[in-house]
Amino acid sequence: MALRARALYDFNSENPGEISVQENEIVTLDSETDIEGWLEGVNSRGARGLIPASYVEILKTSEPAPSLNNAAGNGNASRYGNIPTGGYDTSSYTTQTQNQNFTQAPAAFTSLSVPMQQQQAAQQNYQASQGSDDDWDDDWDDSSTVADEPGVVGGGSQDCHAARYRISTRSDTSSVYSRSGQQQSAKGSATVSRNLNRFSTFVKSGGEAFVLGEAAGFVKDGDKICVVMSQYGPEWQENPYPFSCSIDDPTKQTKFKGMKSYMSYKLTPTHTQNQVNRRYKHFDWLYARLVEKFPVISVPHIPEKQATGRFEEDFISKRRKGLIWWMNHMTTHPVLSRCDVFQHFVTCASTDEKAWKQGKRKAEKDEMVGANFFLTISTPPAPLDLQDVESKIDGFKTFTKKMDDSVLQLNATANEFARKQITGFKKEYQKVGQAFKSLSQAFELDQQLYSAGLNHALAHTGDAYDAIGEYFAEQPRQDVDPVMDLLALYQGHLANYPDIIHVQKGALTKVKESQKHVEEGKMEAQQAEGISERCNIISFSTLAEIQHFHQVRVRDFKAQMQHFLQQQICFYQKVTHKLEEALQKYDSA
Amino acid sequence: MALRARALYDFNSENPGEISVQENEIVTLDSETDIEGWLEGVNSRGARGLIPASYVEILKTSEPAPSLNNAAGNGNASRYGNIPTGGYDTSSYTTQTQNQNFTQAPAAFTSLSVPMQQQQAAQQNYQASQGSDDDWDDDWDDSSTVADEPGVVGGGSQDCHAARYRISTRSDTSSVYSRSGQQQSAKGSATVSRNLNRFSTFVKSGGEAFVLGEAAGFVKDGDKICVVMSQYGPEWQENPYPFSCSIDDPTKQTKFKGMKSYMSYKLTPTHTQNQVNRRYKHFDWLYARLVEKFPVISVPHIPEKQATGRFEEDFISKRRKGLIWWMNHMTTHPVLSRCDVFQHFVTCASTDEKAWKQGKRKAEKDEMVGANFFLTISTPPAPLDLQDVESKIDGFKTFTKKMDDSVLQLNATANEFARKQITGFKKEYQKVGQAFKSLSQAFELDQQLYSAGLNHALAHTGDAYDAIGEYFAEQPRQDVDPVMDLLALYQGHLANYPDIIHVQKGALTKVKESQKHVEEGKMEAQQAEGISERCNIISFSTLAEIQHFHQVRVRDFKAQMQHFLQQQICFYQKVTHKLEEALQKYDSA
Repeated sequence: MALRARALYDFNSENPGEISVQENEIVTLDSETDIEGWLEGVNSRGARGLIPASYVEILKTSEPAPSLNNAAGNGNASRYGNIPTGGYDTSSYTTQTQNQNFTQAPAAFTSLSVPMQQQQAAQQNYQASQGSDDDWDDDWDDSSTVADEPGVVGGGSQDCHAARYRISTRSDTSSVYSRSGQQQSAKGSATVSRNLNRFSTFVKSGGEAFVLGEAAGFVKDGDKICVVMSQYGPEWQENPYPFSCSIDDPTKQTKFKGMKSYMSYKLTPTHTQNQVNRRYKHFDWLYARLVEKFPVISVPHIPEKQATGRFEEDFISKRRKGLIWWMNHMTTHPVLSRCDVFQHFVTCASTDEKAWKQGKRKAEKDEMVGANFFLTISTPPAPLDLQDVESKIDGFKTFTKKMDDSVLQLNATANEFARKQITGFKKEYQKVGQAFKSLSQAFELDQQLYSAGLNHALAHTGDAYDAIGEYFAEQPRQDVDPVMDLLALYQGHLANYPDIIHVQKGALTKVKESQKHVEEGKMEAQQAEGISERCNIISFSTLAEIQHFHQVRVRDFKAQMQHFLQQQICFYQKVTHKLEEALQKYDSA
Repeated sequence: MALRARALYDFNSENPGEISVQENEIVTLDSETDIEGWLEGVNSRGARGLIPASYVEILKTSEPAPSLNNAAGNGNASRYGNIPTGGYDTSSYTTQTQNQNFTQAPAAFTSLSVPMQQQQAAQQNYQASQGSDDDWDDDWDDSSTVADEPGVVGGGSQDCHAARYRISTRSDTSSVYSRSGQQQSAKGSATVSRNLNRFSTFVKSGGEAFVLGEAAGFVKDGDKICVVMSQYGPEWQENPYPFSCSIDDPTKQTKFKGMKSYMSYKLTPTHTQNQVNRRYKHFDWLYARLVEKFPVISVPHIPEKQATGRFEEDFISKRRKGLIWWMNHMTTHPVLSRCDVFQHFVTCASTDEKAWKQGKRKAEKDEMVGANFFLTISTPPAPLDLQDVESKIDGFKTFTKKMDDSVLQLNATANEFARKQITGFKKEYQKVGQAFKSLSQAFELDQQLYSAGLNHALAHTGDAYDAIGEYFAEQPRQDVDPVMDLLALYQGHLANYPDIIHVQKGALTKVKESQKHVEEGKMEAQQAEGISERCNIISFSTLAEIQHFHQVRVRDFKAQMQHFLQQQICFYQKVTHKLEEALQKYDSA
């Protein structure tokens, strides 16, 4: 019996093997079971090929009239689907009544409570991807429990080197890292005992449930996470078994008889020395797990998805660099680097499919996520001073805003600087080279013996300026690009912090509220004390995370600035050397 | 009795002390005698001040109706006045019937038979100065025998450094050196025994008269000029007493109770070691003498006149550099450096006014000018092969055209390169510096001890890029400007050569003609032989001059390219050093 399904949204085929379908179009499927997120079938026009599983719903015998409320066939497609299409007003940190008139977004979009400007840029991308529908990506997660909405797609093909440096850098930079995680934008702060806004980060993250004492679970010894006091304040206890993990050049793999292809990255962690192969979708899956599990940890964003040009050298190299940065931040994070799901990701043999699936299921069923995560935290005995915490958090909030602004500025400037070098600077130097060469050609018309040396030297000078023009064009890859990669990663972190601060602020508010309730006789002192103690755990965690952020930031920016300056120095030395060579030619002229 | 005069042209006062007059306006003068080219008087609106003497004609008692034919009061104003306003069609080296319908040019303009593009550029300037009438210059020659038409004026004030590098470089470069000499443009080649076109360079230079045996004069031993044969061909005999002459920073002098001021240059020739003071007008006077005297020698052009901004530092420095280049070409020329008028110019004590005037009169009465100059030439005994000479001259013609094109291109490119460095490059580097500084300011909000070193280093990096931006803006003065000064000087030489070649070609044509006439029995063999012998003298002189040009060219361009590259190397080393300094700050970060 032929299996029928109805298309929930328009899907335009982008790659060979895919077929296009229109919303409400009835398609005939070969099987109900998808293969890595794809179903094979025939559309109403008789074309056979692959359709994304989440774009169709299987029609059972007694299928009712098409209903938009019955979202995608994939249970998780609706998970982040109930988001107003227009996104949230993200003027951060203000209380706001949540709009309850939800509309179904055709393609779910993970909106973040990021600073306004980034949000706007993301929305632009979002609108672009809505319009073109070209955001489908074979690197999509395959099945079951993982968020697999199309998400944000960056600015098209990267095949032209110069095209990388666009004049508008806002959308450029903020699209470098996408966030397909669980945290969603919401404004409501916890001003009532129970926040009715289920989109509040404080609520969603589990922060509220934990503070109110509703979290419960059995914490194994291995899951314990310690916050310790250092000279700089609360810190995550260091990973006693530090390791790093290399990411080698990916190789292109194919499936579906070559109809679909994807890139496979080779990961080699130093503590096992066993190489494992991972696809982008695995990174994406891991990222979603981490965001879900850790409410007050800034999980580094993975590099952007890209619909077209995914196999072009520039994009592959860029994504790999992005993943290396990401991996570096993962392995140096005391908590993230040690968690089970990450260890599973970097160590599980690619050949052992069973073990992989077991680890995957275990991670997806992990109970110590969100509210329960806080149960795993051990803090130093002396509680933190509430006012001191509040002042530190406020200071950090100011810091992140200012840093975000300057990172945006530096990114735009670096982008423009690179663009100018690739275009204008190169052109100017090569025009100078051409003019010298032209003069030497004119001089060659004079065949006097005493003229030959000068002619030769002049021609060489022309070549030197031509070469220097090329040096300018090639230079940004060496120095500006890595700076921009770093900035992109930090833009991701900076986009995470409003949510983290929000959770912390929510907890502090709960403490103040409960103290007031006690004064008014509405709450027992013991209950308020419990809230205070649990808030203290959140405070320790948040401050430890902030401390880690600063330490890694100083390390990263120092290293990157050194690298940048070293590369710049090499560059000017190379130019100098080229000119010295040219000058020497005149000795015999 | 009040002396009345009528203004011949509009004159707009540009400087304090001057008064404006309109064409045909009647002014009252204090005296008929001008002081350095200026008359003091009162215009019809009652304003008292100075008026250029050549702009008015004194009204005698029986003054007829205003007549344009009665040119300027200054006898020499009409000397180059009979030039069609539109200039000549200068499509070089073609025979053309001279337009005899002369119109009186309101301000005389020395038109040159220069390559087309330069001529066009010059005409643009010309038109501009016609329109604005702002071409009056206090550095004007004062009196009597020297051409003192307003001439070509360059592009206005030079007070803004960046403004020097204009987008349109044609008019920029060709206006750097003005030519106020005697040679004038004309096309007619000597195809008849006697060229009726008195504007033919061949005729004007005295070349024709000499070839036809009409030159006569007593040549003193000291006036003898030798052409010798070297391995490279005919050469001017070297100056047995070579010298050079320094030009120091000029000082500002005033006259007319401070109403008029001018710059005085200090010249110190190495062979006398006596410093003499000379004004621009003296250079101008000397230049006119040299052009008149030497028909086939390329007299270097003196730097442009400038109406406004004459006392501004940039202009003073630029003119001084121009005069240094000029002086260098003068002193290294075997013929020019030894001639009486130049020796008088560099050696006559500034304090000995009588000696100066004697030398001046002597130079102006010199009989060995033009046609008679050739009488002073001694050549090697073996005559040159006529065809060989013709081929060499043709080759050089091609060379000058190609060199002129590439010099124009290099000049435009260098100009644009300098402009980009002063504007764009500087801006880009300073924007990078600003972005680093802004990031360091954001980072300073984190007061952790471990952050301070990075913040300091980042701020320092910002300063370094700011400084590098300044380096870029300052650099063109060090390297590009001297190259452009050299190019300007050579553009002057290249503009001279069409005339020189024209004289040579005229002589060759005369030889061919006379040989034909002999064959046809219209001329005696002896007469033809005389023509051939005299043509041989012109050929030797021309080839010696071309030889000298090539040698000096190779010397100049080699030295200038070395200087340019050395400065460029210094520049990039300076940049590198600045970056190394910045990098070091991270060691302690």
